[in-house]
Amino acid sequence: MLSQHYKDMCNSASVIRALSVYATERGKEIGYENVFDYTLGNPSVPVPDAFNDAIIDILKTKSSAEAHGYSPNPGNPEVRSIVADSLKRRFGLPYEQKHIFMTSAAASAIAHAVRCVAAPGDEVLTFAPHFPEYYPYINETGAILRTVPAQTEDFQINFEEFEKMMNPKVQAVLINTPNNPTGAAYSAETLKKLAAVLLAKQDEYGHEIFIISDEPYREIVFDNAETPYVSAFYDNTLSCYSFSKSLSIPGERIGYLAVNPKAKDADMIVPMCVQISRGTGHNCPSSVIQQAVGRCIDMTSDLKVYEKNMNILYDELKALGFEVVRPSGTFYIFPRALEDDANAFCEKAKKYDLIMVPSDSFGVKGYFRMAYCIETEKVERSIPVLRRFVEETYR
Amino acid sequence: MLSQHYKDMCNSASVIRALSVYATERGKEIGYENVFDYTLGNPSVPVPDAFNDAIIDILKTKSSAEAHGYSPNPGNPEVRSIVADSLKRRFGLPYEQKHIFMTSAAASAIAHAVRCVAAPGDEVLTFAPHFPEYYPYINETGAILRTVPAQTEDFQINFEEFEKMMNPKVQAVLINTPNNPTGAAYSAETLKKLAAVLLAKQDEYGHEIFIISDEPYREIVFDNAETPYVSAFYDNTLSCYSFSKSLSIPGERIGYLAVNPKAKDADMIVPMCVQISRGTGHNCPSSVIQQAVGRCIDMTSDLKVYEKNMNILYDELKALGFEVVRPSGTFYIFPRALEDDANAFCEKAKKYDLIMVPSDSFGVKGYFRMAYCIETEKVERSIPVLRRFVEETYR
Repeated sequence: MLSQHYKDMCNSASVIRALSVYATERGKEIGYENVFDYTLGNPSVPVPDAFNDAIIDILKTKSSAEAHGYSPNPGNPEVRSIVADSLKRRFGLPYEQKHIFMTSAAASAIAHAVRCVAAPGDEVLTFAPHFPEYYPYINETGAILRTVPAQTEDFQINFEEFEKMMNPKVQAVLINTPNNPTGAAYSAETLKKLAAVLLAKQDEYGHEIFIISDEPYREIVFDNAETPYVSAFYDNTLSCYSFSKSLSIPGERIGYLAVNPKAKDADMIVPMCVQISRGTGHNCPSSVIQQAVGRCIDMTSDLKVYEKNMNILYDELKALGFEVVRPSGTFYIFPRALEDDANAFCEKAKKYDLIMVPSDSFGVKGYFRMAYCIETEKVERSIPVLRRFVEETYR
Repeated sequence: MLSQHYKDMCNSASVIRALSVYATERGKEIGYENVFDYTLGNPSVPVPDAFNDAIIDILKTKSSAEAHGYSPNPGNPEVRSIVADSLKRRFGLPYEQKHIFMTSAAASAIAHAVRCVAAPGDEVLTFAPHFPEYYPYINETGAILRTVPAQTEDFQINFEEFEKMMNPKVQAVLINTPNNPTGAAYSAETLKKLAAVLLAKQDEYGHEIFIISDEPYREIVFDNAETPYVSAFYDNTLSCYSFSKSLSIPGERIGYLAVNPKAKDADMIVPMCVQISRGTGHNCPSSVIQQAVGRCIDMTSDLKVYEKNMNILYDELKALGFEVVRPSGTFYIFPRALEDDANAFCEKAKKYDLIMVPSDSFGVKGYFRMAYCIETEKVERSIPVLRRFVEETYR
């Protein structure tokens, strides 16, 4: 008998995907170059040549079994060591191979992390606004995702609301910095305060509380800054990384889970992930792709275009009177809509072929997200249209 | 708090893996060429050149976004069509793109199939002997795997025991033909009888019962025969395929789930798989690897060596007086041990550096599995050793 649960889920369509499909369809009518499609977080800059060269070299120089044979369950050992060494060098934590579990990008890393630390019925807290997929990621494990209201002034953490929601059932806090959809990165101060609250609550409740840190945008940071590395602030941290955005390879489904070496039972967590895999049907990411990211570990695509796009949009949005927090990274910006109903706002924008995502599905009302991982030339062409939309609709 | 469930699972070591590790360690002492390692089902023949050439061509001729960008959740549409066309052409069922869901090999296809058709508490039946991983594959979803005792004369289905175990809680039957560990393939007669039983039980219980057909060895068939295609015998069939063995690319984690177009709600099942993925953290297999298998869809590695190895082993085992069913395919053979305790038998063989897997973890006692996906030269060298082992130990 077909599962009613999954049948029902089919009816909950993604707003982002629906708008993206609309943009593509509209493109067929008027030419896609005339649709200002700010819907999807799909990297626009190309993969570094070195990544493709690495794949070709592996195929040409390695034996069939070395290139395409089974990886051990936690991933290619050499690649895991390369990842550990890179994290150690960059962030000063004593990572070793045994702390790294290779995954099908951040989604899979989170799927493993949650199951490691939260049983069915346990609670996981996250902070609004957040990536809508956090709901299935957490709730489909049987744990329960609860959302702390946003601190909209700066999109740091609303500690008052957070502390109100903490309770002994909370086993994990899921954070995302730099953040989709706001582009905000948590400051060192925010992370210190978060760590202090969690340490106190661990004592109070008598059990560990883990941070699951979703970090696909770690490398996309503006103003030559570095995002504070979450795990450096709190031992019980599981870092979930994806190479999708840093190397522009979202279709290759490659990332890792990195266990803070000082986490409770740190050496147990990767073996537990292996067990989790047996039930979820994930085993390993592609062998060739693992080896290729191993060879490009500290490399990124040319990510500067995102900062350029951000600056153009931010300046114009400010000039037009939008309330907007300047992104510290990612390729998203999250301004307040010009009316309370963000859906109505985005519907009106659609008439100008400006396709933007209303904030409701991110867990906040009254905002909208623009994903500016598109060509700068198109961002520039969208500016007079945005201006016209605002002037004709809201002046 | 770390999950006690997954901690406990860490203690249940795989017998196959332990023996494989032993063989590798022993190889360090005496030279791996002197260890007759029949433990692992890891393909020994190389990938076809066309597969590597396809990857290189995709990297050199496609844009970064075409090569490495996000696939839609059910997989690359073009590749799904290629798979559907191939199945249609080969097996005469009217597959279309919408019936194909690309997966991380057969493990992931089964993970999706089970969740589609069995809810927690439901039963799934399988037939001994079977791949040991079927336990976590099924039980970790909350459904319950129950094993029908083997029909050891020919490793077809023991219908008497099967019908005794059927009950209204059974939502699916998981089969594997050609079979790991026996090498037996279900005959058309067996599949007809299975279909008849299931059709009658569907009527009796008033709900569908699905066949989940695990088919990674579909292409490895001996005597120029073809394995009867399960889905052609029973409409409510979900075929779970892997390219791991046919193309010798087990590390690339690529396969698919194919929904019989006449299955109940056939058009719903791929969308349901997409929903299931959201909770398990799988999204898609690698984009490049999907496209490469699309270009090699009806190709295989040179699989003839497996038949050659099988014939050498089968003839010798018969000559030595083993009770053994001649494999119809795969790269496994499953003789009866020369004493009731297969573990003791395999321990004694180890003294001769013959490393074989006792049958207990496959759900049958008193047999052993030899995985002969190794070089023919080594199979030949193992024959006098096998002879000496048997003569010195059991004569």
